[in-house]
Amino acid sequence: MGEGILRLGFVDVRVTDLEAARKHYVEVMGMQETARTGDALYLKGWDEYDHHSIVLRQSDRAGLVKMAFKVHTYEDLERLENQLRQYGASVTRVSNGENFKVGEGVRFKLPSGHTMELFVDMEYKGKALPQVNPAPWPEGLVGVGAPRIDHLLITADKPHETVDFLMKALNFYMSEKVVENERSETPISAWLFRSNTPHDIAIIPGKDEGLHHFAFWLDEFNDLRKAGDVFSKHDVSIDVGIERHGITRGQTIYYFDPSGNRNEVFTGGYIAYPDMPVVKWTVDQLTRGIFYFNHRQEWIEAFTGVTT
Amino acid sequence: MGEGILRLGFVDVRVTDLEAARKHYVEVMGMQETARTGDALYLKGWDEYDHHSIVLRQSDRAGLVKMAFKVHTYEDLERLENQLRQYGASVTRVSNGENFKVGEGVRFKLPSGHTMELFVDMEYKGKALPQVNPAPWPEGLVGVGAPRIDHLLITADKPHETVDFLMKALNFYMSEKVVENERSETPISAWLFRSNTPHDIAIIPGKDEGLHHFAFWLDEFNDLRKAGDVFSKHDVSIDVGIERHGITRGQTIYYFDPSGNRNEVFTGGYIAYPDMPVVKWTVDQLTRGIFYFNHRQEWIEAFTGVTT
Amino acid sequence: MGEGILRLGFVDVRVTDLEAARKHYVEVMGMQETARTGDALYLKGWDEYDHHSIVLRQSDRAGLVKMAFKVHTYEDLERLENQLRQYGASVTRVSNGENFKVGEGVRFKLPSGHTMELFVDMEYKGKALPQVNPAPWPEGLVGVGAPRIDHLLITADKPHETVDFLMKALNFYMSEKVVENERSETPISAWLFRSNTPHDIAIIPGKDEGLHHFAFWLDEFNDLRKAGDVFSKHDVSIDVGIERHGITRGQTIYYFDPSGNRNEVFTGGYIAYPDMPVVKWTVDQLTRGIFYFNHRQEWIEAFTGVTT
Amino acid sequence: MGEGILRLGFVDVRVTDLEAARKHYVEVMGMQETARTGDALYLKGWDEYDHHSIVLRQSDRAGLVKMAFKVHTYEDLERLENQLRQYGASVTRVSNGENFKVGEGVRFKLPSGHTMELFVDMEYKGKALPQVNPAPWPEGLVGVGAPRIDHLLITADKPHETVDFLMKALNFYMSEKVVENERSETPISAWLFRSNTPHDIAIIPGKDEGLHHFAFWLDEFNDLRKAGDVFSKHDVSIDVGIERHGITRGQTIYYFDPSGNRNEVFTGGYIAYPDMPVVKWTVDQLTRGIFYFNHRQEWIEAFTGVTT
Repeated sequence: MGEGILRLGFVDVRVTDLEAARKHYVEVMGMQETARTGDALYLKGWDEYDHHSIVLRQSDRAGLVKMAFKVHTYEDLERLENQLRQYGASVTRVSNGENFKVGEGVRFKLPSGHTMELFVDMEYKGKALPQVNPAPWPEGLVGVGAPRIDHLLITADKPHETVDFLMKALNFYMSEKVVENERSETPISAWLFRSNTPHDIAIIPGKDEGLHHFAFWLDEFNDLRKAGDVFSKHDVSIDVGIERHGITRGQTIYYFDPSGNRNEVFTGGYIAYPDMPVVKWTVDQLTRGIFYFNHRQEWIEAFTGVTT
Repeated sequence: MGEGILRLGFVDVRVTDLEAARKHYVEVMGMQETARTGDALYLKGWDEYDHHSIVLRQSDRAGLVKMAFKVHTYEDLERLENQLRQYGASVTRVSNGENFKVGEGVRFKLPSGHTMELFVDMEYKGKALPQVNPAPWPEGLVGVGAPRIDHLLITADKPHETVDFLMKALNFYMSEKVVENERSETPISAWLFRSNTPHDIAIIPGKDEGLHHFAFWLDEFNDLRKAGDVFSKHDVSIDVGIERHGITRGQTIYYFDPSGNRNEVFTGGYIAYPDMPVVKWTVDQLTRGIFYFNHRQEWIEAFTGVTT
Repeated sequence: MGEGILRLGFVDVRVTDLEAARKHYVEVMGMQETARTGDALYLKGWDEYDHHSIVLRQSDRAGLVKMAFKVHTYEDLERLENQLRQYGASVTRVSNGENFKVGEGVRFKLPSGHTMELFVDMEYKGKALPQVNPAPWPEGLVGVGAPRIDHLLITADKPHETVDFLMKALNFYMSEKVVENERSETPISAWLFRSNTPHDIAIIPGKDEGLHHFAFWLDEFNDLRKAGDVFSKHDVSIDVGIERHGITRGQTIYYFDPSGNRNEVFTGGYIAYPDMPVVKWTVDQLTRGIFYFNHRQEWIEAFTGVTT
Repeated sequence: MGEGILRLGFVDVRVTDLEAARKHYVEVMGMQETARTGDALYLKGWDEYDHHSIVLRQSDRAGLVKMAFKVHTYEDLERLENQLRQYGASVTRVSNGENFKVGEGVRFKLPSGHTMELFVDMEYKGKALPQVNPAPWPEGLVGVGAPRIDHLLITADKPHETVDFLMKALNFYMSEKVVENERSETPISAWLFRSNTPHDIAIIPGKDEGLHHFAFWLDEFNDLRKAGDVFSKHDVSIDVGIERHGITRGQTIYYFDPSGNRNEVFTGGYIAYPDMPVVKWTVDQLTRGIFYFNHRQEWIEAFTGVTT
């Protein structure tokens, strides 16, 4: 037995111009290009050790192809596959190598229509630091120098169905949820975790199969200012920020990659545990939950209205 | 089934002057006193929701009475009890209420002689923030305003035996270890985790049953400066810091409570996962692993030589 | 002889509700109320030693009554008075006590119609720290805890005339200016200093006698986040931020006091010297000069369009 | 007329190995080498615009050759020359070019025996940022990336004589001083400024002609951690830090260049004005004035005992 789902393993994302995307993710975000196949680029952050955490795939539009979560052991994978089938999900096996550099796994659809996969093994690349006597950070970081991806936020026509699915079939825990009022329990939106971060995935209302954003972790608040400076130097389109989230307590800049996929640089937040009582946000205070400083209704509408 | 051990639940610590200890932990560290029994004080941090994370117990000397880790479910508790017995540990049941405000659990000794307990339930107190639409931090924090405890570091005559025990019987994972040289595997010291932090417990060479320190989490680097200022204003005896750790990448101040228990305020560090390859520190670079800035042999000797 | 104009001594500002203003400046900004007269409140920051740096005056509208700069010596005052007269300004003497707690000075109008005064002496109050063996910060700071005011920004129909006046008659130096293009010299806007900060006063195009904002200094970037949190908790209306300025390199939140006077919390920026070559911003890059992250034309228009 | 002494213009320092010094100041500190003559290197920080702020001079020992302060105008220079002569100083004229790239000036000795010079003009090099539409920081900073020098601290057998000299003959102002007790006025040590920083020069007891350290400015507290990391990576010998100063409120790391000259990276501190009342530190609290966290007598003795 193992620890179940460990983390968001990789996002597989459509981009409309692979070279522009490469420039952005490598030269601005500071990711390492670990491989290139015919129509796809594979990238990892400097503090990640698996082969990749982002796949960029040439397409005629932006958006999420699929997301894959890393599972601790094959015993866990089998257990989760059983749970998925018991929950009524249609699960297919993914063979070793069907995903470039990724081992055997399973594939299924969330109630929201998103494709999700689970896998156990990915080719090991190693961090950008030695395994023996490492310095606290590597030399030669480029641009933002994001150490790793952190989470993603998807949209669903009926968020609570996907929230239920993730919690019951995959043992995600809930840190925070938006509800109609203090006495409501049904989540209008929800933030879910498997790691001890406040969210590995979140679900908000919107079209099925939609991607609101995926996020990069930054180590501290000042790194957001550096990121903002780098974005401005490189003419990256900033959506919102620097802002504080009420939900998760995190701090953020939202911005768009050259294809129009929304990304986030995120830092802060508390340590989340499965026994932590769920924090509720009522719809009347939701603007503060999303942007704690500039809690303006029109911002929230623009922010939640644009997805890929 | 659940998630096994979630975190360091509480430390039970001897102090030689309960009132002086109260002043320190409440007025300097900013902990909340949640209860007082005849000879003991119960404390929690503002971001903790269980009844207490520290028990201060009147004694004629400093040191650790015991440490207790919180387990997710009773099914986990039973499983871990079995693993402990299979590993050859002598396990006794702790009845509900035997520990003030704590439910049923198990007690056993580490190979190093330390008493450890596991429990599932503790009376719920709640964070110092509301459960509905909370602000990112509470008003009226006192002194350092530490949000929570983070980890502890114990000493053992034969560290590798206790490391083995924690990993095999309790499913701790190792983030970093000190070894003789690059090719060595046997840990001279080790940093172990169950959460996604680089350590929930660490073991270094020293006397059996020894406590090197227990640590408070602070949210960011600047909070260390505030802590140092508060310590100076209150004549708290600082041991070392502000320093960077090579091991864990964390940043730190070590200091002593009024009874001579060493404490730490700690921030930073990476996210640790069970599949992360273990970082090795060779003894010739160990001083840098411990104090990355002032990596002086004499400091390390003084630092590792004093325990309670 | 002395050092001439030392700093922005105080701003005298109209507010439409003195009690609401008191709550804002004292309970949110953390200023100390040092006196109250019939229709006015006197405030200072914790790191200021003169009796006040802000006068809030009951009125039926917001805006600036006048600004007063502190001059080092009476010899300087006389010299500046002569320079003002030589420049053609109409200067009147202000008698000791005409301004509450302020000594003798001079009054004149800028070409933009703003009333400016110079004074040498103000009643001494002292910082919120002792003069002997002070701690680095005082206990009991409230809300944002702003240590001091920093600068103000005014609007003028013909900014370059006021810029000339300030530089020639009062020996202000220019750190940065907005110009039509690289080869232009005439300032469309200008940032001027007497201290070693990038600006003690700035002038942008707009109506004569207009106040764009006056600013509080904060000691570091993280303090802006704290300020934003405090503003949100107290329902202060945030205008823009957290943002980086290209001009001055500072970091900022703009917000409104309850009467609609725009204020800023500002940190960062370089050390400015009289021999520093003036930085130019061309109008085509001005949006980045003002808001380096979100350099949007519509933001700039909203931002520069609202004055009191 | 002008503003008198503007700042510490340059330090001229002896090093025992010019190539080792170059590597340290360029590759570790991130200074730009602007010229090299037979036995000397000329360096500037990225945010400095004059040709150099440090001269490194090959010698058989470490220490200070001289310090030079930049004066605003030749009228100021003449005025200060007169003041120096009135004070009884023996002043000699320095011809244009006698100091490489430096214009005409004056030279004299402090009562402590140190050679000091004043100059008005130095060849202009420009910051590492463009004069038009500059980004807030330049690309490609190396190592610590120190933007500029900040101050120096010298030792004197009779500090109060040199303090008097600097204040009366050169119009330095005092921000803080060490005194025997609360009622004492005679400075045992003193911190003096001409800019609005808490010190451009400080004088502590010790041998005449001694250099305790010269300091680099860093923009914020987190930059000290980066500096400490860089120092450790490059085996720079750290003396003390990260520490808080009680005096000036600054934060600091002290370290040695390869020749044994003590340097400091310094950040923080308040804005100082000529009319600010002098802060007093009594000798019984001096350890806290120097190292606010680790205020240990033996540290202070080691710290103040080593000079060049």
